[in-house]
Amino acid sequence: MEAYLDNSATTPLCPEAVEAMRGALERVWGNPSSLHHRGLEAERLLGESRAAVASSLNCSPREITFTSGGTESNNLALFGAAAAMKRRGRRIVTSPVEHSSVAESAKELSARGFDVVYLSVDSIGGVSEQELLRLITPDTILVSLMAVNNEVGTIQPIEKIRRAVRLRGAPALIHCDAVQAYGKLPLYPQRMGVDLMTVSSHKIHGPKGAGALYIREGVRIQPILFGGSQENRMRPGTEGVPALAGFAAAAAALPDHKQAYEYVSGLRGQLIEGLAAINGVQVNSPPDALPYLTNISVPGLMSETMLNFLSARGVCVSAGSACAKGRRSRVLQAMGLSDAEINGALRISLSRFNTREEIDYFLRTLGDAVATLART
Amino acid sequence: MEAYLDNSATTPLCPEAVEAMRGALERVWGNPSSLHHRGLEAERLLGESRAAVASSLNCSPREITFTSGGTESNNLALFGAAAAMKRRGRRIVTSPVEHSSVAESAKELSARGFDVVYLSVDSIGGVSEQELLRLITPDTILVSLMAVNNEVGTIQPIEKIRRAVRLRGAPALIHCDAVQAYGKLPLYPQRMGVDLMTVSSHKIHGPKGAGALYIREGVRIQPILFGGSQENRMRPGTEGVPALAGFAAAAAALPDHKQAYEYVSGLRGQLIEGLAAINGVQVNSPPDALPYLTNISVPGLMSETMLNFLSARGVCVSAGSACAKGRRSRVLQAMGLSDAEINGALRISLSRFNTREEIDYFLRTLGDAVATLART
Repeated sequence: MEAYLDNSATTPLCPEAVEAMRGALERVWGNPSSLHHRGLEAERLLGESRAAVASSLNCSPREITFTSGGTESNNLALFGAAAAMKRRGRRIVTSPVEHSSVAESAKELSARGFDVVYLSVDSIGGVSEQELLRLITPDTILVSLMAVNNEVGTIQPIEKIRRAVRLRGAPALIHCDAVQAYGKLPLYPQRMGVDLMTVSSHKIHGPKGAGALYIREGVRIQPILFGGSQENRMRPGTEGVPALAGFAAAAAALPDHKQAYEYVSGLRGQLIEGLAAINGVQVNSPPDALPYLTNISVPGLMSETMLNFLSARGVCVSAGSACAKGRRSRVLQAMGLSDAEINGALRISLSRFNTREEIDYFLRTLGDAVATLART
Repeated sequence: MEAYLDNSATTPLCPEAVEAMRGALERVWGNPSSLHHRGLEAERLLGESRAAVASSLNCSPREITFTSGGTESNNLALFGAAAAMKRRGRRIVTSPVEHSSVAESAKELSARGFDVVYLSVDSIGGVSEQELLRLITPDTILVSLMAVNNEVGTIQPIEKIRRAVRLRGAPALIHCDAVQAYGKLPLYPQRMGVDLMTVSSHKIHGPKGAGALYIREGVRIQPILFGGSQENRMRPGTEGVPALAGFAAAAAALPDHKQAYEYVSGLRGQLIEGLAAINGVQVNSPPDALPYLTNISVPGLMSETMLNFLSARGVCVSAGSACAKGRRSRVLQAMGLSDAEINGALRISLSRFNTREEIDYFLRTLGDAVATLART
């Protein structure tokens, strides 16, 4: 039996994405910039793909810039906004629990002379409105906060940022890394008061190598790559049409948020209940975390030893974010967890395709792991 | 009948690439950074893909950094080299006939304070060794020159650059945009004295959204995107494994250079002979250009009008580079062509999959176009 419970690292492709890519790879292989019929049909598919992704975010297709993935979108948001806004201030506000593509971009911007400041987080990795008001100043040009934390599932108060920015009279653009929230929570950037929003294809059962940055109509940022005039001059290079068509198909196949949320909440309930019955397991995620993501610790055991035990039995979970391979979790550190809790952490991340049988199998196998490894 | 003769814009996928991608999309969808078996199998496929691309360049897999395509590779080469070398000098030497992803990156570097200088080109867009010696100074940190021009097929004397750099005592890194040469000429970066070389998947019958930058062992450049530690810390973000597997399959399927070169030279001979029989057509490419690429002009007619006529009859060629959609060719301007010659230019670009029948059909249709359009 296999139980893939590492959907926050990546997801298997949904049938709709596979089908769309097959078609595009074999039939719509033209360069969308070419003026002949092969180019025009590729341009048409690109336009349809943009419309589908825009529809999943309730925004206009003109507001969607396709990229090679979430990391590039986050880089484009941070460096693009900083370059466009640098005459209006130097302060960038972010959190210590962001994905590495935001965290490392912020660090680089700090090295380039921007004043990068970090919001404090509470014991569940959350940011408060008070914190936003404390750090946002009239010379703040960018606030970057993730919608859902990628390691523990904490939901951040994104919709409070706009109010704080207004109250402080800051010119700041608001960026939201919504990679882990996309397809799981209703994301309406406009209603959320967000200027820039990152989403990724391979976390919603689409192919790798595709992502998008929502750029609110009227907002101007600078490109970070230079070349042709593709993507409204915001991202040069021949568009990866087949992957983008797969992304669009996965976006279009997203079920009603509420229905999937309820289904996954049920799985999470089963998971939490089962975990409580295993000796020595603690849950690090807050009760009101996104139900798709549950972080646990088995203090005294090492994550990697457990991962190996589980993987040998067909169970896939992770120690933290895949991108942080081998490094200690910054997120759990920021939450104030002990070394033993951090070293024994596991992330279980669900998708709408997971089943009760998989949760049962995981719980049984984790129970075996704890019993076996605690003895050695 | 269809004749796709725009292979320098993009190519249809070869069956090997389609097959490799299908397999990867449905079966090897793990995140290569994950520590469980799904991650490990993706990491294995990524390693095999890297080895195949390295083999096509006669280099070590450690020297291959995968990117989202040629444009990103060119940006990484220029900005990465400039950032790494900026303490040793400010001069960057390039040519006026580079692809827009090199040209626009160079322009941006100039705006950031680098001293970007342009080699003169002759009437066929070629650079001479004298020109290299004239412009390379002891404070030159980067020389970027394409292997084969993307609009007219002129082959540049890449192997002369190293000598010029040595003679002038420059610390310069040597970058070669080999997108149009890859798979068509034997490319051995080490023997050519090149430090950085750009190649792209979709110009060799692989998928879009995949490319690579060869970085010679021991050469250090700075990354341009920030995040996870993928690609030896040179390019963050979850690797687009299926596209990279398709890229690798296309690279592995490249035939013996000589054999394909001879076959395409035969098609080119047929093309040139046929063009000579059409009134008012002039060939802009030099006789010793890469046979895969032929630039012609029909002075008095407009490229776009001809493209539309041809496309309506199933013939795909282009006015210039696809990335320069709608803009006047910088390359033909640098070669000193007249306005009428530039406005009436067409690029015919071949692949090893083209046939004598397609060339015949193109010639017949172009003859019709010239006869019909010249009358109106």
